[in-house]
Amino acid sequence: MADTPPPERLTYEAAGVSIAAQDRALAEVKRLAKSTFVAGVLSEIGSFGGLCTLEPENPCAQVLVASADGVGTKLKVAQMAGVHDTVGEDLVNHCVNDILVQGARPLFFLDYFASGKLDPEIAVRVIAGIARGCRANNCALLGGETAEMPGFYAPGEYDLAGFIVGSCRRDRLLRREAVVPGDALVALPSTGLHTNGYSLARKVFFEILGLGVDTVLPTVGVTVAEALLAVHRSYLDAIGPLLADGMVKSAAHITGGGIPDNLPRALPTGVGAEISLGSWDEPPLFGLIREAGKVPEDDMRRTFNLGVGMILAVAEERVATVLGKVAPGGPGWVIGRAVAGEGVRFVAGERG
Amino acid sequence: MADTPPPERLTYEAAGVSIAAQDRALAEVKRLAKSTFVAGVLSEIGSFGGLCTLEPENPCAQVLVASADGVGTKLKVAQMAGVHDTVGEDLVNHCVNDILVQGARPLFFLDYFASGKLDPEIAVRVIAGIARGCRANNCALLGGETAEMPGFYAPGEYDLAGFIVGSCRRDRLLRREAVVPGDALVALPSTGLHTNGYSLARKVFFEILGLGVDTVLPTVGVTVAEALLAVHRSYLDAIGPLLADGMVKSAAHITGGGIPDNLPRALPTGVGAEISLGSWDEPPLFGLIREAGKVPEDDMRRTFNLGVGMILAVAEERVATVLGKVAPGGPGWVIGRAVAGEGVRFVAGERG
Repeated sequence: MADTPPPERLTYEAAGVSIAAQDRALAEVKRLAKSTFVAGVLSEIGSFGGLCTLEPENPCAQVLVASADGVGTKLKVAQMAGVHDTVGEDLVNHCVNDILVQGARPLFFLDYFASGKLDPEIAVRVIAGIARGCRANNCALLGGETAEMPGFYAPGEYDLAGFIVGSCRRDRLLRREAVVPGDALVALPSTGLHTNGYSLARKVFFEILGLGVDTVLPTVGVTVAEALLAVHRSYLDAIGPLLADGMVKSAAHITGGGIPDNLPRALPTGVGAEISLGSWDEPPLFGLIREAGKVPEDDMRRTFNLGVGMILAVAEERVATVLGKVAPGGPGWVIGRAVAGEGVRFVAGERG
Repeated sequence: MADTPPPERLTYEAAGVSIAAQDRALAEVKRLAKSTFVAGVLSEIGSFGGLCTLEPENPCAQVLVASADGVGTKLKVAQMAGVHDTVGEDLVNHCVNDILVQGARPLFFLDYFASGKLDPEIAVRVIAGIARGCRANNCALLGGETAEMPGFYAPGEYDLAGFIVGSCRRDRLLRREAVVPGDALVALPSTGLHTNGYSLARKVFFEILGLGVDTVLPTVGVTVAEALLAVHRSYLDAIGPLLADGMVKSAAHITGGGIPDNLPRALPTGVGAEISLGSWDEPPLFGLIREAGKVPEDDMRRTFNLGVGMILAVAEERVATVLGKVAPGGPGWVIGRAVAGEGVRFVAGERG
């Protein structure tokens, strides 16, 4: 690493992804989406997943919670490494988490797999990963589309998207309105980058550091491919039992935009968050990216999960129980508190 | 056109899409999908859309019917022509038709829009088309994913996929088992190529004939872009009222694979179909492709809808009523009969 020239400071925007441009388009998209809302759409609650019920008048009816996702440029790493059987699990788990934070358990999943020239062997490996992810989350792979689009994708490349539908009794949906200042924020560890920040991470490892997918990362102890392809964790096993018990008020899946952009989606207007730096274990992979890319801390926080894949808002008196119940899937940490205000503030020192 | 050199015979396989390779992979994918089936999946009925119910024990419960689709390389024509606000309608209508043939009406839709560098203006135009399609089909655009994937898509290119969920009372699902030899096959006109056969059509118009998107096609009377971008028709208005009345036994959405591959999906084992050539009006666009590409007739039939976008299996005594009811959306034709046997046979002469 000492041989590489000192890099420019690297931000997510410079690496080719403009979150601001995305935000502008998404605002207009939301307006367009609203123009389509029919009876049954519970738009006032909408957050990570969209909500729709077949019985708008019944307060205890099942609500369908749906979400669409892609794998992003983590696919590029999979394609470089020739590892095609884990991105499907990434996709399923990402989708599962997006409806889980609304309180829903998965019902079924559909995939979209597109390539220029169908390589049946690769397609089957990708979909085998999807099926494995579906079985692990008790979710049916109900269908999908395998598209062959000559001239659209480079040889060996493909894109992959997924769509999940789950359900939750309407009166058991998680509602951010339940969160009040003083509630604890319990973080659950991620398994790595999950599915966000890959444009920046690839730039750091493959361009700045000039590494190959098979290079072993000294501080991490695995190859670049193994580190970057670690499967996005599903939090269903850890959180599912807590939902039935009403232990969790609200939850945020930490994806693109990191804690600063995702945690507020789980907090009501007038409630912000104070996060204590050093209150959780940041895996060495993130430090490596931060240092090699000279990435400003604010960009690190808005690009990566930094070791926190899920945050639960929990009443103080329930924190010990929650920490005990999530422990089998890994540790849990109290990383901060809900506070009066707006947005996320990172503060030095001990647990909030 | 007289200036172009005599082309080789052009088949869909030669144009870059291997339906056989797709079929092999899809068989394995089906096996993988089956390994995920949980209680509530009504897999024995599965066909164009996947079926799942929240109440497996209730024969009158609502069944969710879901489908995933893309727009295929019709997108390339849209991108060449700079027309971005109709492919979304294509996508929604395609999805609506796929669940309609199971008997379901749409509830909600989610999209996946992916490009290398997000062009917010184009994204909004695409999604405006989706929203228009959703409104026309009384379907909520409940969410979606807008993915920015640097290095994955060429500048100006994007991919688009859609996912739909509809519902139907379980005892009102269309079931191909209801079809018996002698039932009439009622065809409803397509509006053009819909979303299939674009790799072959593009080869014919842009490579063999060397036309531009703005060239007016003499026999068709519109430009190449207008002809190729005609919006995939939704059959919800035409067929929806017939479903409530039990007028239709079974239905087939004619997409990739044409009548020979799609009609059998709406027929039970032991029942085939006889289709009378000349019993419907084939729009001149297909003749143009057939002649300019010297496309063998079997390839034409397996690549294009040839003017038939939807086929309904109807008991003889209900044919007159059905033809009367579908008429406001365009004509309907009796193009053949269900017969004992397997597969689709095209026969010369008059209506079956």
